[in-house]
Amino acid sequence: MAERVEGFNFEQRHGKQRVRVARVWKTKEGKHYVVEWRVSISLLSDCVNSYLRDDNSDIVATDTMKNTVYAKAKECSEILSVENFAIELAKHFISFYRQVTAAIVNIVEKPWERIIMDGQPHMHGFKLGSERHTVEAIVKKSGALQLTSGVEGLSVLKTTKSGFEGFIRDKYTALPETRERMLATEVTGLWRYSYESLSSIPQKPLYFMERYNDVKRVLLETFFGPPNEGVYSPSVQNTLYQMARATLNRFPDIDSVQLKMPNIHFLPVNISNTGGQIVKFNDDVYLPTDEPHGSIQATLSRFWSKM
Amino acid sequence: MAERVEGFNFEQRHGKQRVRVARVWKTKEGKHYVVEWRVSISLLSDCVNSYLRDDNSDIVATDTMKNTVYAKAKECSEILSVENFAIELAKHFISFYRQVTAAIVNIVEKPWERIIMDGQPHMHGFKLGSERHTVEAIVKKSGALQLTSGVEGLSVLKTTKSGFEGFIRDKYTALPETRERMLATEVTGLWRYSYESLSSIPQKPLYFMERYNDVKRVLLETFFGPPNEGVYSPSVQNTLYQMARATLNRFPDIDSVQLKMPNIHFLPVNISNTGGQIVKFNDDVYLPTDEPHGSIQATLSRFWSKM
Amino acid sequence: MAERVEGFNFEQRHGKQRVRVARVWKTKEGKHYVVEWRVSISLLSDCVNSYLRDDNSDIVATDTMKNTVYAKAKECSEILSVENFAIELAKHFISFYRQVTAAIVNIVEKPWERIIMDGQPHMHGFKLGSERHTVEAIVKKSGALQLTSGVEGLSVLKTTKSGFEGFIRDKYTALPETRERMLATEVTGLWRYSYESLSSIPQKPLYFMERYNDVKRVLLETFFGPPNEGVYSPSVQNTLYQMARATLNRFPDIDSVQLKMPNIHFLPVNISNTGGQIVKFNDDVYLPTDEPHGSIQATLSRFWSKM
Amino acid sequence: MAERVEGFNFEQRHGKQRVRVARVWKTKEGKHYVVEWRVSISLLSDCVNSYLRDDNSDIVATDTMKNTVYAKAKECSEILSVENFAIELAKHFISFYRQVTAAIVNIVEKPWERIIMDGQPHMHGFKLGSERHTVEAIVKKSGALQLTSGVEGLSVLKTTKSGFEGFIRDKYTALPETRERMLATEVTGLWRYSYESLSSIPQKPLYFMERYNDVKRVLLETFFGPPNEGVYSPSVQNTLYQMARATLNRFPDIDSVQLKMPNIHFLPVNISNTGGQIVKFNDDVYLPTDEPHGSIQATLSRFWSKM
Repeated sequence: MAERVEGFNFEQRHGKQRVRVARVWKTKEGKHYVVEWRVSISLLSDCVNSYLRDDNSDIVATDTMKNTVYAKAKECSEILSVENFAIELAKHFISFYRQVTAAIVNIVEKPWERIIMDGQPHMHGFKLGSERHTVEAIVKKSGALQLTSGVEGLSVLKTTKSGFEGFIRDKYTALPETRERMLATEVTGLWRYSYESLSSIPQKPLYFMERYNDVKRVLLETFFGPPNEGVYSPSVQNTLYQMARATLNRFPDIDSVQLKMPNIHFLPVNISNTGGQIVKFNDDVYLPTDEPHGSIQATLSRFWSKM
Repeated sequence: MAERVEGFNFEQRHGKQRVRVARVWKTKEGKHYVVEWRVSISLLSDCVNSYLRDDNSDIVATDTMKNTVYAKAKECSEILSVENFAIELAKHFISFYRQVTAAIVNIVEKPWERIIMDGQPHMHGFKLGSERHTVEAIVKKSGALQLTSGVEGLSVLKTTKSGFEGFIRDKYTALPETRERMLATEVTGLWRYSYESLSSIPQKPLYFMERYNDVKRVLLETFFGPPNEGVYSPSVQNTLYQMARATLNRFPDIDSVQLKMPNIHFLPVNISNTGGQIVKFNDDVYLPTDEPHGSIQATLSRFWSKM
Repeated sequence: MAERVEGFNFEQRHGKQRVRVARVWKTKEGKHYVVEWRVSISLLSDCVNSYLRDDNSDIVATDTMKNTVYAKAKECSEILSVENFAIELAKHFISFYRQVTAAIVNIVEKPWERIIMDGQPHMHGFKLGSERHTVEAIVKKSGALQLTSGVEGLSVLKTTKSGFEGFIRDKYTALPETRERMLATEVTGLWRYSYESLSSIPQKPLYFMERYNDVKRVLLETFFGPPNEGVYSPSVQNTLYQMARATLNRFPDIDSVQLKMPNIHFLPVNISNTGGQIVKFNDDVYLPTDEPHGSIQATLSRFWSKM
Repeated sequence: MAERVEGFNFEQRHGKQRVRVARVWKTKEGKHYVVEWRVSISLLSDCVNSYLRDDNSDIVATDTMKNTVYAKAKECSEILSVENFAIELAKHFISFYRQVTAAIVNIVEKPWERIIMDGQPHMHGFKLGSERHTVEAIVKKSGALQLTSGVEGLSVLKTTKSGFEGFIRDKYTALPETRERMLATEVTGLWRYSYESLSSIPQKPLYFMERYNDVKRVLLETFFGPPNEGVYSPSVQNTLYQMARATLNRFPDIDSVQLKMPNIHFLPVNISNTGGQIVKFNDDVYLPTDEPHGSIQATLSRFWSKM
C-alpha cells in the first residue's frame, strides 16, 4: 500500500475504533438472543490528498463508518456469528466506496452467556463469562479474504504435571531445575481459516461460532490432558506446540495457528530470617505474579499458508 | 481511633496491600484444590510515635505483615473458605502484637474453577471464571468481629421485562418513558454476617463458601425471575430492593446487605440525516456504554444491625 | 439517612457517575481557557416508594442529572474553579427538587496544561499533565456545606535521605534495617475546608484553584526538603505527618487533611547462583514493584473538625 | 525466521516481558540521576527441539534474561539513554549465546522528572510526568541493527483552528461539516534511525535522549502552530502528515516516522426536550469521549527506508 509522495514513501490507513453495538433477536416463542460487539474498522483507501492538502473529497468520515456498523447490525435479521458480521461490514466498505481498496474489521465479542436456572436455560437472561471471541476480517476490492478468528483472556492453571529442566546454565542463571511446578498462562490464540474469497465461506450462519467452541475445546484438552492423569509438560514451548498441532490436525479448514502463552509465574515461597526459615516451600504456598512474566509465542501453519 | 497530638486530632492506620498468595491442597487420591488470594491488611495500632518523631519501636513493618500471610497460608493444612483465612490473619495480628488494637483484612479471591471435560471434573486443571468473591474481616483486641462477604464483577443483562416510567419531568428532563428496555448492571454486593465474635463463627471450614454460592443464586434468581416468564422490573431501585430483601429473608445469619447496581445503559440506536432515518430503533440495535452510567446503591439491614 | 421500611433499616442513594464535560472560555484577545471534568452525582432523596413498589414519582432520573451538568456548564459564563462548579451543581439539586435532602458531587479534573513554546504561552494549545485535582461538595437542604478538595496521582520519588530502623522484630520479620533507601509514593491527598455553608465560601472564582496549587507546593516541599540538602525521612509515617501538619499550619481555612501514601517499594537487587553473586546491591540497581505495597494513611484535623 | 517441522511451517520466539529496573547514578557533588525502565526481551533462537520434544538444552531460561537485565544495569557506571541500554542488552544476547540469532529489546521509560523548587533543581527529588519515552532495538547476529525510538501517551488538545469539510457524503453520513471544532489526540510516535549496525551509532551516551526531546518539540510545534496564531488543521490526516514531514526534514538521521493519532472526539452538546432546547451548542460545552474514536495512522519514510 506504499505510495510515493513528495519524494517520500507513504503508507496510511484510517478508521473508527471501539464502536460498541448490541443486537437482540427474538423468536416467536419469546426466546431472546443477544450479542455485544466492540467493532474496529480500518480502511486502506486512495485518499492521499487529504494528507497533502486541504482536500477531504476522498475521505470516508469515521463517523460514517460508525453509522454503518449500526445500519448493518439492523439489517441482520437472523443471528449470525461475529465472523459473518465482520465479513459483511468489510464487504460493504470495499464495494460501496470507489476509493476503498481494502477493509480490515476487528471485532471483540463480549462473552454474554445464557443463564441456567435449575438446569433450565433462561429465555432472556444473560451473565458475563470470561474469555472473549475475536475476529479479524480483511477483504480486498477483488473479493480476496483473510479471516482470522481468535480467543483472548483464556486463563488456565494446572497445579502439577509441569516442569522445566535441562536448559542452558551460565553465569547469569539462577533458576533451579524442577519436575514439579504450577503452570499458568493466559492464552491468546489466533487461527486463520483457509477460505480465501468471499464466495468460498460456509453458508451456515453459526458455522464459525461452533468452530470457536471446538477450537477452544481442543486447546484446553491438549493443555490439561485427561481428567484423571493429566499430561506432563516439559516446557511451555512444548505444550504450546502440542496445542497448535492438535488444532491444525483436527480442523482441515484452519491453515495456521498462532498462540501466545505468557508464563505467568507462581513462585515457590521460601522466607528466612536470621532465626531460621519462616516459610519452607513444599509445593503448597506460591506467590503468583504478573510482572515479569515469560513470553512464549509461535505460529504453526500448513506449508502453503502465508500467515 | 482518634487521638490528640500536638493540639490536633489524629487518626492513622498502616498495612500492606495486594499481597498475592496461592495455596494448593492435594488429597491422597491426587485431587488438587487451589485458591489464589489478593490480601490487604490494615492495622490500627498504638504507634503514634513513629509519626511524631524518629521512633519506629511500635511499628509492625509491612514487610513482616507480608511474610505472615505466607506463614499463615502454610499453616492451613486443610482447604478453607476465604472468610476463614481472613479471620485467622486478623486474629493473629490482634493477639500477637500488644500495639495492635484492631486488624482489618480484605481479600479478593480469583475465580479459579475446576475444569470439566466431557462431564468429568479434572483432578488438577483450573480455568478462570468471571465474578469474584470478597471478604472483609475486622477483628478487635477484644475478639469482637465484623465479617462482611461479597461478590464483585457480577455482570448481568436481561433483554426485556424492564421499564422506567412516571419519574419526575422538568425542564432538564429529556428521557422518554418506556416499558421495554434492556437492563444491565455489574452487581457489587456485600453482606454482613451476624457473628459478632471470633468464638461464634460456624466451625465448618467451607461454610462461608457455600453461603457465597447460595447468596449469588438468590441474587440472580431475583434479578432474572423464572426461566420462562422472567419478572418485570419497574426500576433498578425496585429490583435492587427485591434482591436485598430476598437475601435477608433467606439467610438468617446475614444481618445486612449492601448492593451497588450501576445502570449500565444500552441506548436505543436512532440515526438520521437530512435524507431520512439511517437506523430506526425497534428493540433490536443498542449502543452499550460505560460512561456515564446511573448509580443506584442501597443498604438493607435488620433493625438491630449497625452496618 | 436511614429509614424504616417493612421492618428493616434502609439507606439508599442514586445518581449518575462519570458524566464527562469540557468547557471552553475565550477572551476578546483570543486567549482560550479549557477544563475537562468527570462529574459524579449522588442524591439523597425521599424516593423510597420507587424501591418498594412500581412508583417512580419521586425519582430524579439519572439522565436528567446528566443533562443538568451540561446546562450548568453552559451557564458558567466565566472560568471558575472545579470546586465552585461542584458547589453550583449540588446547590441546584437541593434547591430545585423538593425530594432531595442532600447532594454529593464529586469531580475529577483532567490536567490540561497550557503549552509553552519558547517561553511563550500558547493562546489555545494544551497538553495533558500528570496529577489530578479532585473535589467533593456535599450540600444539604439547609445550605450546610462540606467542601473537600484533593489531589490524586501525585507520584514522587527521592533517591536518598530515607531510612527505616528500629521497628518491631519478631519471628516473622525478615526486613533489614536501613538508613539509605529509595522513597517513592503516589500521594492521594484530601483537604477539607472550614466553610460550612454556601454563603460563607470566598467569592473569588479561582480562589480554590490557587489553593490547590499552594497545597501541592507545601506537600512537595515538605516531602523533598530543600533542593540542596533534602530532608531525612525516618519513616513514611513521619514524612506523611510532617506534610499534613505543614498544610494545616499554612492554610487557616483548611480544617483537616487526609493523606494516603502507599510505600511503593524499590527493592535492592541482589542475585546469586551457586557460582557466586550475579548482582550485588550498592545503592544503585533496584526492582520497583507495585504489588505488594505498604499502605500508610492518616488524617490530621483541627480539634473542632468533624472529618 | 520460519523453519519446517513435521510438515508445517513454524515460527517462534520467547522472552521475558515487564522486567522492571531502576538505576541510580550519583555525582561526587551529590547530584543524583535516576531512570526507571520496563524491559521486554524477545529472542529468536535455534531452540526448536524444546517445542518438539522434552529437550530444553538450547533454551535461554527467561529467568536468566531477567537476571541479565539487572546485571547489565549494574555494569552501566555512567548515565546513558534508554536507547543505549536497549542496544547493550540486545548485543549481549546475540553475542553470548550461540543459539540466539536475533534479539528484540523493547523498553518503556517512566517519566521521572527532576523537581524544581523556586527555580532550583533538586539534587535527588523527582516527580512523575506524563508522556513516555520508548525504544525498540533489534540486533542480529551479524551486528545489523534496527533502532526505533518513540513517544507514547502524548495527549494534546487545541480548542480552535481545526475543521473537517468536503468529505464523502452518502446515505450513511450524518456528520455536519465544520470549520471550528476541538482537536484532541493522544499521539503515539515511532521514529526509526538510519544507523544500521552496532558500530555506526553515535558515541555520546545521551545523544538519543536529546533527540527524543527535539523530536517531541517538532511534533508539538507542528501540531499547535505559533503561540499567538496557531495553525489551521483541515483534518487529522493533514496535521499528522505535517508532523511526520517536519520530523524527517529536521533530523537527517531519522529515516522513517510512524504516527498514530486517534481523533479523540469532543462532541458538541445539544440537548432538547419537547419544551425546547436545554443546551444549545455555541463552541463552549463539549462531551469528551474515548469510545468510539477515529483512528488515523501513517508512516512516512525516506525512499530507501525499509520500515
